[in-house]
Amino acid sequence: MRAAEAATAALSRADCLARDAADPLAGFRERFLLPEGILYLDGNSLGPLCKDVRARLVDVVDREWGVDLIQSWWKNDWVGMPRTLGDKIGRLVGAAPGQVVVADSTSVNIFKALAAALDLRPGRRVILHETGTFPTDGYIAQGLAALLGPERVVLRAVPRDSLVHAFDEEVAVGLLIHAHYKTGHVLDMDAVTAAAHAAGAVTLWDLAHSVGALPVALDTAHADFAVGCGYKFLNGGPGGPAFSYVAERHQDLVHQPLSGWIGHLRPFDFAPDYVAGAGIDRFQCGTPVVLAMATLDAAVDLMLEADMAQLRAKSVAMTETFIAAFDRLCEGLGFALNTPRDPAVRGSQVCVTHARAGALMQQLIAGGTVGDFRPPDILRFGFAPLYNRHVDAWDAAERLASAARTIGGDAA
Amino acid sequence: MRAAEAATAALSRADCLARDAADPLAGFRERFLLPEGILYLDGNSLGPLCKDVRARLVDVVDREWGVDLIQSWWKNDWVGMPRTLGDKIGRLVGAAPGQVVVADSTSVNIFKALAAALDLRPGRRVILHETGTFPTDGYIAQGLAALLGPERVVLRAVPRDSLVHAFDEEVAVGLLIHAHYKTGHVLDMDAVTAAAHAAGAVTLWDLAHSVGALPVALDTAHADFAVGCGYKFLNGGPGGPAFSYVAERHQDLVHQPLSGWIGHLRPFDFAPDYVAGAGIDRFQCGTPVVLAMATLDAAVDLMLEADMAQLRAKSVAMTETFIAAFDRLCEGLGFALNTPRDPAVRGSQVCVTHARAGALMQQLIAGGTVGDFRPPDILRFGFAPLYNRHVDAWDAAERLASAARTIGGDAA
Repeated sequence: MRAAEAATAALSRADCLARDAADPLAGFRERFLLPEGILYLDGNSLGPLCKDVRARLVDVVDREWGVDLIQSWWKNDWVGMPRTLGDKIGRLVGAAPGQVVVADSTSVNIFKALAAALDLRPGRRVILHETGTFPTDGYIAQGLAALLGPERVVLRAVPRDSLVHAFDEEVAVGLLIHAHYKTGHVLDMDAVTAAAHAAGAVTLWDLAHSVGALPVALDTAHADFAVGCGYKFLNGGPGGPAFSYVAERHQDLVHQPLSGWIGHLRPFDFAPDYVAGAGIDRFQCGTPVVLAMATLDAAVDLMLEADMAQLRAKSVAMTETFIAAFDRLCEGLGFALNTPRDPAVRGSQVCVTHARAGALMQQLIAGGTVGDFRPPDILRFGFAPLYNRHVDAWDAAERLASAARTIGGDAA
Repeated sequence: MRAAEAATAALSRADCLARDAADPLAGFRERFLLPEGILYLDGNSLGPLCKDVRARLVDVVDREWGVDLIQSWWKNDWVGMPRTLGDKIGRLVGAAPGQVVVADSTSVNIFKALAAALDLRPGRRVILHETGTFPTDGYIAQGLAALLGPERVVLRAVPRDSLVHAFDEEVAVGLLIHAHYKTGHVLDMDAVTAAAHAAGAVTLWDLAHSVGALPVALDTAHADFAVGCGYKFLNGGPGGPAFSYVAERHQDLVHQPLSGWIGHLRPFDFAPDYVAGAGIDRFQCGTPVVLAMATLDAAVDLMLEADMAQLRAKSVAMTETFIAAFDRLCEGLGFALNTPRDPAVRGSQVCVTHARAGALMQQLIAGGTVGDFRPPDILRFGFAPLYNRHVDAWDAAERLASAARTIGGDAA
């Protein structure tokens, strides 16, 4: 940590430009349709449009929908897309084929997985999660608990750093945020999963802020369930569909209650009784949202062209650059870093706090630097290695300092 | 009925062309991008692409996503679209503003509504539905029943024509298919809702095969809940998002268990505890699928340009034409009509049975006439008054007769 600081202490904007010139991933930036004059550091909320995605969507609309119409379900394999796209995403999260399916939203998929996990551990009723979990994860757990009642579901919240010690014989499932949305802190998937299993519990990993941004190894970690989101680092379009992972060993044992027709073993038989589909298929529910799914599919294809080790290396380098520039340029302006300094436990974002964070982010956005404000006092900057540059990290820190000077020391 | 038959007995193709020439809705056909050489009678499975929809989608992609990026949630009111589009759909189903919201799939919305309905009637555990209900409706009811157990949910199936008499003090909710997918028969919404209410139960209407095709008057019928689908007669694109209706009188009393962050009263506070949104908002769950929702929005705009009374009149006239032509041209070829002859209880589709229905539909599709096969023996033809013509109804009957002659009398 001290060594890293020393290495970047004398960093200049010219150094950042030099690093960008040597970046093996630099060519990917041109594949995106980034708006003029915008420094976009919000790919962790909404990834930008890339050219191939636009072309694919237009083709799906004009040819697959417009010309082939209903026959596209087979001719263009719309019916298979949740599985084929799921397998592609599986390559990004360390899942062998047949364990990931794309369907519904992250929230809906959390509901399915929590219900399925409780079903796997019938004698246990605790859903363990961290205090301050990602809101929708907590809300969905609360909704399931309210539906099933305290005889069947009890929520237990502990601090994030206590999760690994909080599994016991009452816990059915740990609802675990891999990369934290407010801090970027990354949980140790291997260690927490092992702790869960040692206590007889299963794990549900929320990969919303890690898929596409850092290496994830679900199979290696022996993870049980996972969900993730298509519209953040995967660049799959606003509100794009989400995915579910269920480890193969559980698939034929679990039931999820959103048993819609596409999860049926033979949906086109239109039979009266539900029979759960084989394997991961039973985690589908209603008719796939084809346009949104094709958009995500093209975006994932682009990401699969990149090497994940290179993506991670660049991500770490960019967040190191931002932190170094922030330390130097933003000192004494009322900021504090809210992200781990150790890159080993840091995702692809950096968060800083400031008493006037909301006003600062408004000022930054007005000047073309786009990040997120998270109440009450967090400014969040996402660094997407496919299209962001080192110089973006430098410029963002410089503009952040400038905005703080403009707004002044008023902490009201 | 006899009178209608007499009036159409001498119908010719030239008569159909004359009716098309006098059709006040004829101009809408040009707004669609229908493929050359295809007689499309499957708008009840997947509505075709129209030009305005394509233009809107391209604009949403290029400008709203591509340029405005994350700010589109406010600048382009993505966050409000589930409600504003819901209100537009409300105009098509007789719902005053604030009672319809667009979110998720029909299947997921059935789950929400069934759970909410059971919550409204805590002393009752029966979900009443018809034998042979639409598969996903039954599957979702089965999933909820399996999750909650027989102490809280019991499914009761009765024949469709007995539904109106089957409500009693055990029934919490009737799960009701407005227009039947296999027969096109339309239930009397007023009468069945009144019967449900007389027994203290509530109603959940599935409008998948009626919204956009025939007048629906949810408020007038005092309906309680409804769901419907965006990709059939609404032409909202493959797998497009679905909608939920909850009567205003119930909205602040009901809870639905898929309590995702977008259904929260203040989603952007990222507060730890779920607080259900006001009114219909609590029937949202995860992040809206913007591209698919914008597509549906543009399609609904087009439909709202048409007069529903004219749409219904043309729909009835087309199905009458098809039945008259079918009676005349398909006689003695092994067919039977599987749709009511009384247009008052017929939706915008005609179904016929044939022992070799699957092979016949393959033959028809190979020749450019696209309808649906529904196992074991049903051929289904949807008539969409925005773009289908009387001559399409005539030609379909003629081609159906021709296909049956080609395939021969072999009923194996």
